[in-house]
Amino acid sequence: MSTDSNRKVVLASRPRGVPAPGDFRVETEALAPLADGQVRVDVSHLSIDAFIRTALETSGYHGSIPLGGTVVALGVGRVRESRAATLAAGDWVSGPLLAQSVATLPAAMLSRIDVQRAPATAYLGVLGLTTGLTAYVGVRRVGRVQAGETFVVSAAAGAVGSVAGQIAKQDGARVVGIAGGEAKSRFLTQQLGFDAAVDYKRDDVADQLRAAAPGGVDVYFDNVGGPLLDVVLDQIKLRARIVICGAISQYSGDMSRGVRGPALYLRLAERQSRMEGFAVTHFPEALAEGEAALAGWMREGRIRLPEHVVHGLESFGAALATLFTGGHTGKLLLAV
Amino acid sequence: MSTDSNRKVVLASRPRGVPAPGDFRVETEALAPLADGQVRVDVSHLSIDAFIRTALETSGYHGSIPLGGTVVALGVGRVRESRAATLAAGDWVSGPLLAQSVATLPAAMLSRIDVQRAPATAYLGVLGLTTGLTAYVGVRRVGRVQAGETFVVSAAAGAVGSVAGQIAKQDGARVVGIAGGEAKSRFLTQQLGFDAAVDYKRDDVADQLRAAAPGGVDVYFDNVGGPLLDVVLDQIKLRARIVICGAISQYSGDMSRGVRGPALYLRLAERQSRMEGFAVTHFPEALAEGEAALAGWMREGRIRLPEHVVHGLESFGAALATLFTGGHTGKLLLAV
Repeated sequence: MSTDSNRKVVLASRPRGVPAPGDFRVETEALAPLADGQVRVDVSHLSIDAFIRTALETSGYHGSIPLGGTVVALGVGRVRESRAATLAAGDWVSGPLLAQSVATLPAAMLSRIDVQRAPATAYLGVLGLTTGLTAYVGVRRVGRVQAGETFVVSAAAGAVGSVAGQIAKQDGARVVGIAGGEAKSRFLTQQLGFDAAVDYKRDDVADQLRAAAPGGVDVYFDNVGGPLLDVVLDQIKLRARIVICGAISQYSGDMSRGVRGPALYLRLAERQSRMEGFAVTHFPEALAEGEAALAGWMREGRIRLPEHVVHGLESFGAALATLFTGGHTGKLLLAV
Repeated sequence: MSTDSNRKVVLASRPRGVPAPGDFRVETEALAPLADGQVRVDVSHLSIDAFIRTALETSGYHGSIPLGGTVVALGVGRVRESRAATLAAGDWVSGPLLAQSVATLPAAMLSRIDVQRAPATAYLGVLGLTTGLTAYVGVRRVGRVQAGETFVVSAAAGAVGSVAGQIAKQDGARVVGIAGGEAKSRFLTQQLGFDAAVDYKRDDVADQLRAAAPGGVDVYFDNVGGPLLDVVLDQIKLRARIVICGAISQYSGDMSRGVRGPALYLRLAERQSRMEGFAVTHFPEALAEGEAALAGWMREGRIRLPEHVVHGLESFGAALATLFTGGHTGKLLLAV
């Protein structure tokens, strides 16, 4: 790889449905001179996140990427050159590096990370804003699960879901994960310590959930939306909390016009329950606390997040598609 | 009317869609002897409430009425005869008297009401469990509107909606009511002191709401559901509260299988907002406080609830239909 050029993933066409490899193209460009306040970062790993897909659409609420524009992504990397007082060459950083090999951006947009405390990729995983910290805020600040309660999480074998379930476990809850297929069910109960797993690919999902949560559901951490949300709404207890973290089953087409709404939302009134949405960025005051807690649990081996690493910028489109077709467990990363 | 017989409204056929007069039949029966602990009540007025409709269906969550069974209703009346220590002949009471002229039931199911403090019908209106107290609990305990916030309520010319808006006004909110037609809009702004009204029968509802709540919506007290809920979800502010009190637009068919869910529920995540449902019965500890507050406001003329009175048990079906077709303002009552 040349050190004086940047290879970047640009949007070649707006995806219809799940993004496909052909929607992206890798281009090479010469590096621009570094401006005052900027740093140059060799990108090490990118986090493959659901929000990237909405940014590819014309009306995503994260803002739309123009055709030919570089695709957004959070990443970690090492500063190669700095014209900012706050960062020096050799520092490891995380931030919105975009899908490219060399990022040139204001130092103020980056956070320095401590690779002694945890490996760099952990800052995209257990300690990552869109992963571990999202799970932390959703469980602790929104769902507020209590010891002895039943906590159910969807997309449980994914990055956010698997960390959310493990946090709820630390908090003394009975934890049930919903995921697709037997292998993922085993991953949840045997590797992550979940109390039970529900396989949403079988046609008896409601019965499985009833067996896994016989007294009903206190907290549902929902990453999925769609019909599964109704299955769970039908089994909530009095004063349940539905945490809306995302709706990966519904990320397609023009989300500004809405998705499949939960047909059983009146269960909220019948059972004095609430459905509350959030984004991690709404809780800036909780991030330092969350990072410290997660780093501690990780050190003690109480929270694990296996990494699923795809290699090379050319694989970006395929990696993103994997996120929506469920072909991975744990945290999906792209090694640049 | 004979004093030794009871006239009762029974379910003649299960309604398809909005209940129609032909779904009901008035029957006469001899009064049974009064048992120990029971009282006999001459029913004065019945409250026409949305929950009655769900009880007519096979799967209503309030429990289903069998064909030929007496239709449920809350009412007020006067004790004619008592075999209970807690109530005496002449006492006024409120409770589940059913749609009939003479109710015979355990005294323990009734509450004595003070007709010096307020007229008997007020105990079905401003002070009623399904009306004023429902509004009180929804505004104060669920929505928790703050002074200076924008409070929007649907079915605003109805009993719950109009009281909810007036309570929010006491609490210092800017209050916007959504109702059908110009007459109701005038009723809200000119008679009840709402700050603005939105006519949902016009096709520019979203624009009207934007004009009425230019900074967005802090609290939405929803009695209606359906497409209107999405119109409001699209205009919520950060940290908004959607109070799910009911979904009168969706009361039809088998509600256990669900209704039209809010397609824009992901706005909750984008704007860190919550949707919380309740029933007044979930807040027994708030009822005495609510009744005292409402009685005070009523005495001071700060909360008004005009009564729309229909006469005679034969009109029960027609009165119930009115509730769903929106042909009334204020509290719908049936004078027995």
